[in-house]
Amino acid sequence: MQYHFSDRISTLKPSAIREIFKYAADPEVVSLSAGNPAPDAFAAKQIGEIAADIFATHPIDALQYSVTEGYPKLRAFMRDYMKTRHNIGRAFDDVLITSGAQQIMEMCAKVLCNEGDYVIAEDPSFIGSLNCFRSLGAQLKGVPIEPDGMCIEALADALENTPNVRFIYTIPNFQNPSGVTMSLEKRHALYDLAKKYGVLIVEDNPYGDLRYSGENLPNIKSFDEDGIVIYSGSFSKVIAPGLRVGYTVAPSEIMKKMVVAKQGEDVHTNILAQMICYEFMTRYDFDENLAFLRRLYSRKAQFAMDLLDKYVVPTGITYLPIQGGLFLWCTLPDGVDMADFCKRAVVEHKVAIVPGTAFLCDEKGSSQCFRINFTTPSDEKLEEGIKRLGAFAKIALG
Amino acid sequence: MQYHFSDRISTLKPSAIREIFKYAADPEVVSLSAGNPAPDAFAAKQIGEIAADIFATHPIDALQYSVTEGYPKLRAFMRDYMKTRHNIGRAFDDVLITSGAQQIMEMCAKVLCNEGDYVIAEDPSFIGSLNCFRSLGAQLKGVPIEPDGMCIEALADALENTPNVRFIYTIPNFQNPSGVTMSLEKRHALYDLAKKYGVLIVEDNPYGDLRYSGENLPNIKSFDEDGIVIYSGSFSKVIAPGLRVGYTVAPSEIMKKMVVAKQGEDVHTNILAQMICYEFMTRYDFDENLAFLRRLYSRKAQFAMDLLDKYVVPTGITYLPIQGGLFLWCTLPDGVDMADFCKRAVVEHKVAIVPGTAFLCDEKGSSQCFRINFTTPSDEKLEEGIKRLGAFAKIALG
Repeated sequence: MQYHFSDRISTLKPSAIREIFKYAADPEVVSLSAGNPAPDAFAAKQIGEIAADIFATHPIDALQYSVTEGYPKLRAFMRDYMKTRHNIGRAFDDVLITSGAQQIMEMCAKVLCNEGDYVIAEDPSFIGSLNCFRSLGAQLKGVPIEPDGMCIEALADALENTPNVRFIYTIPNFQNPSGVTMSLEKRHALYDLAKKYGVLIVEDNPYGDLRYSGENLPNIKSFDEDGIVIYSGSFSKVIAPGLRVGYTVAPSEIMKKMVVAKQGEDVHTNILAQMICYEFMTRYDFDENLAFLRRLYSRKAQFAMDLLDKYVVPTGITYLPIQGGLFLWCTLPDGVDMADFCKRAVVEHKVAIVPGTAFLCDEKGSSQCFRINFTTPSDEKLEEGIKRLGAFAKIALG
Repeated sequence: MQYHFSDRISTLKPSAIREIFKYAADPEVVSLSAGNPAPDAFAAKQIGEIAADIFATHPIDALQYSVTEGYPKLRAFMRDYMKTRHNIGRAFDDVLITSGAQQIMEMCAKVLCNEGDYVIAEDPSFIGSLNCFRSLGAQLKGVPIEPDGMCIEALADALENTPNVRFIYTIPNFQNPSGVTMSLEKRHALYDLAKKYGVLIVEDNPYGDLRYSGENLPNIKSFDEDGIVIYSGSFSKVIAPGLRVGYTVAPSEIMKKMVVAKQGEDVHTNILAQMICYEFMTRYDFDENLAFLRRLYSRKAQFAMDLLDKYVVPTGITYLPIQGGLFLWCTLPDGVDMADFCKRAVVEHKVAIVPGTAFLCDEKGSSQCFRINFTTPSDEKLEEGIKRLGAFAKIALG
């Protein structure tokens, strides 16, 4: 039978990351292409204790249907935590627990955009979000990213000249893939522009707690006195991604529509996972866990940058130093064929990196960049991978 | 700020069930309005043992990111299980693990329907699926349901006269809300019509394992030599709904598109829950668990029907006897205002039932029916609830 697929799905290309992942499955390949937390980042013992305790004391709560809005204790705790810690959440806001932050992106596009409406995004940006917006028929308008965040002039221009913009999607902290953090000045400028044009902001902040150096900057949502920011948080990088638990702080009126969408998507998020997140945050010292993660990743980030300086930078490749997050963004010299470079790196030299084109708003656009992840591989693998990359670059660019 | 919502979400009405649920939260109300498994249906001890074992032996597998397609062991097991037990799955099919069966419905609409395309569904049908199709801009064409399933003449007519029908949505076993099971003859007729018109079938089978009497009938997917049936299964009613794990057996070509959609929805299903389902099915006697559930629910179903016969049928209300599932479907005498009856039942007489209009494809349609669930309340509550219903009906219809 000849199947008929919807236009929104037909036009979606399989992610370039998945192509690379196919090669990365080869055990000889060192993968710098993932975005996973380090295996030693998980508090497996504590999470196991929590699960045992839940099954010993109130298993039915973890097994029965629950409410779409989320485990009430976790919602209440996160409402309080986000307000106290980050000044996020006003009287007009509410909290919804979701199946990872990915679902927040899905619901934003479903609830806010008709097919053909526009989403403005940093260019490059997280491919999972971009593809998700596309899968609901939204169009993307990219705004270039600079070392201090989105180019504000280009944003103003995009807002002025793009029809039916429904929201601006931004990852202000340690952006994926570029590693860039938006300056405080730009956060305010972005907020003011969104307000001026009556456009919402979707602030995606999976990495905010993973700052290794420099000062924390306030989240855009903390300025939000006008009900124009949807904040997206995640437990994936600070507890465990396999649990698939995220949370949004958003104006109640929007949150109610998200609940309607979520009922149709998965009824509610796995309740055991929500209970685990709640217990983990309240029973153990969550700050100490964050401090542990920052020490772990900070060391790995510095190790990766030192290796790049030693083996890769001398070949003419540059990278943006980072203050947090999971990724390093490298740029090839002009004239080098980036796609060919990434493909040869994995096929011939057994090191997997992600081509920059994967992250573009315009799928036909070009890029001189590639992304490296330093959290997933062991130190040994990381060193081996960056050495291979350097050796290959020396040949390819020499 | 005045928010702009997408047309697909704006037109979606809050579910009438949720309205009833608001009243049902009153502790004085006996709720016959839910669709939950009985609390004593859960193998909580075994599931707790499995979770403890996973955390003791391979916790990182349960905490790290996983693949979108599903936990490989569970996928492989279900492929085999569905083939062996139900003759479901051909060389052209594949298995995808999902975040509950609800997500399968969401992906079917997203992948197969453009906005404005039609889905044919039994009328009445499961509101969660209908609202989910609506939330992706699909239009619904209802086909009346008869005591032996969908009216085949009306289906033929709908297929002939409705533009852009993308699939036929059916719950052949113990349908929600009607309790009706489709006859073998009609299953074949439905398959033949779908084939003739080149339209897919989405077979939703959450209750198939919960047959209390009569002979099991083959699933429509077991006839599928043409790659036109998407089978939807769920662990919600046979292990635990809080886990949110479902599975689909569908033509690989369609399944691949679903994977693309799922990446944008939640990346993958909670991996601990998938591991629990796999271990539960392979480590314990799953057939014995099904037999236990059938005994439990069969007794409760008979108890509920006996109570209806005693207290409710004498007032002029009729119901369809069932051979399985979780629901009883009752019909009020002509001329009675059904919505008013349901509202007065909960507000004045503290018994919550679900108005039949909640399940209609045409939200403006009328119904003389209401739905009763007998699995969630205790025997005591069930008796009290049906007594209240009878006492009220005696006044209201007397």
